[in-house]
Amino acid sequence: MVMSSLANASTFEVVSIWSVLFIAFLGLGYAFMLRIQIMRHDKGSAPMQEVWNAIRLGADAYLKRQLKSILPLIFILTGVLFFSVYVIPPSEEALKRFSTFTPDMVRLIVGLGRAAAFVMGAFFSLIVGQFGMRMAVEGNVRVASAARRSFGEALKIAYRTGTITGMLTDGLGLLGGTLIFMIFGIASPDVLLGFGFGGTLLALFMRVGGGIFTKAADVGADLVGKVEKNIPEDDPRNAAVIADLVGDNVGDCAGMAADIFESYEVTIVSGLILGLALMAITHELKWLIFPLLVRGIGVVSSIIGTYLVKGSEKKGDEKNIQSRDAFKSINFGFYASAAISLVAFFFLAMFYMHEWRAFLSVGVGLLLAIIIDEITKYFTHTQHAPVKEIAKSSQTGSATLILKGLSIGFESSAWQFIVIALTILTAVLIYWGMPTVFVLYGVAMTGIGMLTLTGNNVAMDSFGPISDNANGIGEMAHLEPEARQIMADLDAVGNTTKAITKGVAIGSAVIAAVSLFGSFLTDVTKVQAQMGILENLRLLATGIRISEPMVFIGMLLGAAVPCLFSSLTLDAVAKASGLIVDEVRRQFRIPGLMEGKVKPDYKKAVDICTIAAQKELISLALIAVVSPILIGLVLNVEALGGFLAGVIIAGQLLAVFMATAGGAWDNAKKTIEDGLYGGKGSEAHKSSVIGDTVGDPLKDTSGPALNPMIKVINLVSLLAAPIIIHCRRTDPGVIATIIISFLLVSGAIIYSKRGSLSLAGKTPACRRQA
Amino acid sequence: MVMSSLANASTFEVVSIWSVLFIAFLGLGYAFMLRIQIMRHDKGSAPMQEVWNAIRLGADAYLKRQLKSILPLIFILTGVLFFSVYVIPPSEEALKRFSTFTPDMVRLIVGLGRAAAFVMGAFFSLIVGQFGMRMAVEGNVRVASAARRSFGEALKIAYRTGTITGMLTDGLGLLGGTLIFMIFGIASPDVLLGFGFGGTLLALFMRVGGGIFTKAADVGADLVGKVEKNIPEDDPRNAAVIADLVGDNVGDCAGMAADIFESYEVTIVSGLILGLALMAITHELKWLIFPLLVRGIGVVSSIIGTYLVKGSEKKGDEKNIQSRDAFKSINFGFYASAAISLVAFFFLAMFYMHEWRAFLSVGVGLLLAIIIDEITKYFTHTQHAPVKEIAKSSQTGSATLILKGLSIGFESSAWQFIVIALTILTAVLIYWGMPTVFVLYGVAMTGIGMLTLTGNNVAMDSFGPISDNANGIGEMAHLEPEARQIMADLDAVGNTTKAITKGVAIGSAVIAAVSLFGSFLTDVTKVQAQMGILENLRLLATGIRISEPMVFIGMLLGAAVPCLFSSLTLDAVAKASGLIVDEVRRQFRIPGLMEGKVKPDYKKAVDICTIAAQKELISLALIAVVSPILIGLVLNVEALGGFLAGVIIAGQLLAVFMATAGGAWDNAKKTIEDGLYGGKGSEAHKSSVIGDTVGDPLKDTSGPALNPMIKVINLVSLLAAPIIIHCRRTDPGVIATIIISFLLVSGAIIYSKRGSLSLAGKTPACRRQA
Repeated sequence: MVMSSLANASTFEVVSIWSVLFIAFLGLGYAFMLRIQIMRHDKGSAPMQEVWNAIRLGADAYLKRQLKSILPLIFILTGVLFFSVYVIPPSEEALKRFSTFTPDMVRLIVGLGRAAAFVMGAFFSLIVGQFGMRMAVEGNVRVASAARRSFGEALKIAYRTGTITGMLTDGLGLLGGTLIFMIFGIASPDVLLGFGFGGTLLALFMRVGGGIFTKAADVGADLVGKVEKNIPEDDPRNAAVIADLVGDNVGDCAGMAADIFESYEVTIVSGLILGLALMAITHELKWLIFPLLVRGIGVVSSIIGTYLVKGSEKKGDEKNIQSRDAFKSINFGFYASAAISLVAFFFLAMFYMHEWRAFLSVGVGLLLAIIIDEITKYFTHTQHAPVKEIAKSSQTGSATLILKGLSIGFESSAWQFIVIALTILTAVLIYWGMPTVFVLYGVAMTGIGMLTLTGNNVAMDSFGPISDNANGIGEMAHLEPEARQIMADLDAVGNTTKAITKGVAIGSAVIAAVSLFGSFLTDVTKVQAQMGILENLRLLATGIRISEPMVFIGMLLGAAVPCLFSSLTLDAVAKASGLIVDEVRRQFRIPGLMEGKVKPDYKKAVDICTIAAQKELISLALIAVVSPILIGLVLNVEALGGFLAGVIIAGQLLAVFMATAGGAWDNAKKTIEDGLYGGKGSEAHKSSVIGDTVGDPLKDTSGPALNPMIKVINLVSLLAAPIIIHCRRTDPGVIATIIISFLLVSGAIIYSKRGSLSLAGKTPACRRQA
Repeated sequence: MVMSSLANASTFEVVSIWSVLFIAFLGLGYAFMLRIQIMRHDKGSAPMQEVWNAIRLGADAYLKRQLKSILPLIFILTGVLFFSVYVIPPSEEALKRFSTFTPDMVRLIVGLGRAAAFVMGAFFSLIVGQFGMRMAVEGNVRVASAARRSFGEALKIAYRTGTITGMLTDGLGLLGGTLIFMIFGIASPDVLLGFGFGGTLLALFMRVGGGIFTKAADVGADLVGKVEKNIPEDDPRNAAVIADLVGDNVGDCAGMAADIFESYEVTIVSGLILGLALMAITHELKWLIFPLLVRGIGVVSSIIGTYLVKGSEKKGDEKNIQSRDAFKSINFGFYASAAISLVAFFFLAMFYMHEWRAFLSVGVGLLLAIIIDEITKYFTHTQHAPVKEIAKSSQTGSATLILKGLSIGFESSAWQFIVIALTILTAVLIYWGMPTVFVLYGVAMTGIGMLTLTGNNVAMDSFGPISDNANGIGEMAHLEPEARQIMADLDAVGNTTKAITKGVAIGSAVIAAVSLFGSFLTDVTKVQAQMGILENLRLLATGIRISEPMVFIGMLLGAAVPCLFSSLTLDAVAKASGLIVDEVRRQFRIPGLMEGKVKPDYKKAVDICTIAAQKELISLALIAVVSPILIGLVLNVEALGGFLAGVIIAGQLLAVFMATAGGAWDNAKKTIEDGLYGGKGSEAHKSSVIGDTVGDPLKDTSGPALNPMIKVINLVSLLAAPIIIHCRRTDPGVIATIIISFLLVSGAIIYSKRGSLSLAGKTPACRRQA
């Protein structure tokens, strides 16, 4: 059955596809091999294992609970996706692909395929998040243990543990897309959307839940520990300290990995959809094979690049040299992968695609990743002007420090807009004079190029929380000073690598969203043309016009969604951290605890965060799933196009603003802690701690949650567009519209009540603190 | 000559137009009468007059200096506007209107008309701002003096002084629009754009300059006075205290009045342009007469309503009753005006327009003003949940307080988007099934309806700084406690009325921008059709498509502008307030000053603010003027459409977010100062002061500056669109394009260097504080 629909495929193409499948497994095999390597290392002393065990249990408990609370929704949506194919007739492509079956059978096949792909997408996203996080937990104690011996060994373990998650992302993302393509051929779009939706929805859950958990614990622990009681971070007497360490894993590891996996997946989904549109015009299979091969090349170069990363083995070296070496080695791996990819892309474009355009598109993507890295660095790194100025403004108090951070956040949003606009402009110039769909394909290829080095990126990103956790374990298990120093250095390197990759995550999310938007446009046009609706032709000719009031209304409503989303996630953190503050304060009052004679009940704090993180989850996901359907049904499908544009614009503005301001405040605090303006304990330091606390939920909860949200909305729109067009067309359709709208709204309200989604008015920030 | 082009006007219509002109003068006459009334009141004791004199001189010096620094740009732009008619042939309408002249003469007439209208718009805006502010300064000392006698008298003086500015806004706005319409008839759009542009550009200068001045003085005075030295606000030993009082006048009076004048003006400009488009379809003059008559009705009802406002005359009454009475009386005046207008609109629509649609459109506008008032109240008033929650979150420190404010700001942006979207949706429903241009006309009428009660609104708004200043004069001149209490009560009422009208200012700005956007669309289509360009027909048929990559690029770049603008204005305040901090600290070190034996040099602080407020002015104005021209020339006119949409979306998001968060923090501080959570001096209070200081430049500088900015960009686009289309069409046009682009960019760079516009990296926040 495989490849049977691609009758006109050349031998090279058939071999290529199989090779890509092989590379996907190679990536997974590499991850497995690394895992065996890591697990061989020792887990250190008994106290270290005790701490580690607490983290492990907390993280597992969180993931289990989260899975339980989202399973019903996944179950319902699987059904909805299956039955969605019964609203509209199967696409021409599907009928052609499965021409040996009756139309009813085809419908069943597509329905099953879409539902199965959705489950697969969700499952893969879950695996990347869960398994990646579990590996991080396994890794951190081993890093702590290795730090007692050598910097180089500790670095290698930390980085390779991160690489496991990176290769899982690569392998599973490539596997899913390739498998669907091999089975469904030209009918893949119908099914790929399900795959993309499953992945993004899970990522949304992991990002939001993990984000709320980690910042509730972090802010709560800091407010009582550092600010009120003036005890150091990770002090074992603080009841929230384990929750904080668990939070690093569920937020920075699981949430982040699922999010990048989802961008990785979605870019290939939109790339294949647009490739199929081009295939319909040019009758060439190459538009489809190319993105898969590009991805394959990326995976191979990531394997090579990440394996090259090694720490300086000379134990006892001066610390700066070691850190610099570590950083250099990680960077070397990154650039080695980039170089290998670029050369391979060139040959692929020239000798298979026979054109320079394809090469330029993916090359621009690689370049874009590097440019965004540099911009992120400029705005958030200690050695550049913005962070220096924030630190300086601490001298006139926290108000001026906050204002400076806001100003820098807005400025960075402006630059990110400009960079993304120039990227699309490049695609326009590359495909100058050709139909719009080529330009959109170019944008999609840029997105794919940008995520070529996902393996390296995720490795660098996971490295952050792993070394952070190792440092925490070291502190709590009272390791010797030398080992502690090594871990502190590793932690600093991790903070840097983590911050850099954040920019790419946002940038790629926007590019992915723009490609999805492009897919939405071509898809809607196609569906309308196939249905022979009158409006169709108009849309076919005109596209989505902002000059239409309905589209403008859609755009305004779209812009409202990221604002509401940000507000709700910020509130969720505020509420949850309020509860943590109560709990930690309560435990501090237990006799003997402050003296270290009685151990605090760490599990209680973990439980509070776990429950709090679930509360808003369903409501937030429902906003993302329900709003585009309602807009489409109540207004029209063109207004839905405007809605998507509004979501992208406002979403990017807020995501970049929050990430940058948060990151810059964080590093301004670090600069001061390193001795500037009086160092730790000075007034300047106090101001900078306030800035950091404000920035934490912005950069780790609300901002990152917008990435998957934007894409969930785009994918739901893509899935719902044909149904919306159908419903609005017929009289029974009108009735169905009303019924569906009613069900959606009432369902959302019921869920909201349960999940306590509400106006600011009804959600007291710190209800139990009075 | 007057009305000669409106040959088919009925007697009723001719009489109507003359009546509107008469009403405009009536409004101005009413303002003049109030002025005579006010000036009769006494200016109080010698110490009061001394303070007052210092404020007056400072405010005058600022305005003079500002005028000097913007005159060259006004001069250049007048020339540019005149010569702009020589790039493209005169419009068909102009040729028809002046059919007795040769085409060359018509060109000259239109050119002169446009340049003269620009100067008139700028001049009117300046008068409203300058004269309104001078009246406020005359009023404040008289309010302070009257407060020694009775609450009622003080209230009446304060409110009526504000009303003078309100009636100036009404009278001049109506006068300008009506005059142009009477002279140019169907050719008015060519000229009206000049009028609108002059008004908005001046408003931008006044808003930005005044905003920077007032917050630099306020933040600077507070940081050293309240926070460092722990002395009360308005303490005479603080060198920045006069600058602070001057700031209230130049920012809250002059800036705000010019801004509302400009919205008032721009809505009539877009209303007339869209009315002419309808006239071209239906050949009925009524579309043009209607908006003018609606405005006339509004002015008359404002005169009646504002005259009804009186304070409780019973001196020595319990203060709460007095305040409540004052508030009730102001509200009564407002609702009286609203009721009169509504009834008159109904009769006008039914018996002149012969249709209910027109009535509904303006009625919705009035309703919208009230709804936005309510939303603003909900989010920023002490008695509602959001402010209460912010106040509560002060208990866990300033970080949680800031976060809560950010969350509320984002939420309010979401609701404002929804309300504006529903407003446009209402216009769509009212004009269901009719061509888009009717819907756009409906939106414009909603904007006009919304600003019906501008007279009342401005009166309520000016009331704020007038009573604030009176309070300051009272404090500095050591008035008796009873008078001080009356002034404090007035100040509190003023804070409330001021905050309410802020929402309407933003809401009307967005509606005005949307109508301008509508005018842009109809205008571009018309110009392209007249030029017989091929692309035209396409645009005529398709409008601005976000599905076109170029348009999407334009939209992304458009969204970048408000971000950059906000960042720059925040930085400007930070820099200027840093200089004030330096100066106040320096003066505190002068021997004898802290003991009250030596008077501080108030003038120095005023000078610093004056100079600082000019610095960024030109660069910021150039961003607004140059960016749309560049986008249009380098990309295309469709991309410019996308650019406008991006500016509107991002601009509204940020403007509402900043205004709400700032207002809510301000009132949360007031709640705490009124005794909640420990009252003044408590830890909670300190946190709330930080929130307030962060919010100040957001709500009084950056946020409000976005209103005129959005409209300047829209008007420049409207003016430039025909030229852009022309330039991009011909080969010499391409050359001109390059030259113009080059001149614009280099001009901007030169100005920027002078005005020190720069990346965050190059503008140290508090350069001289180290």
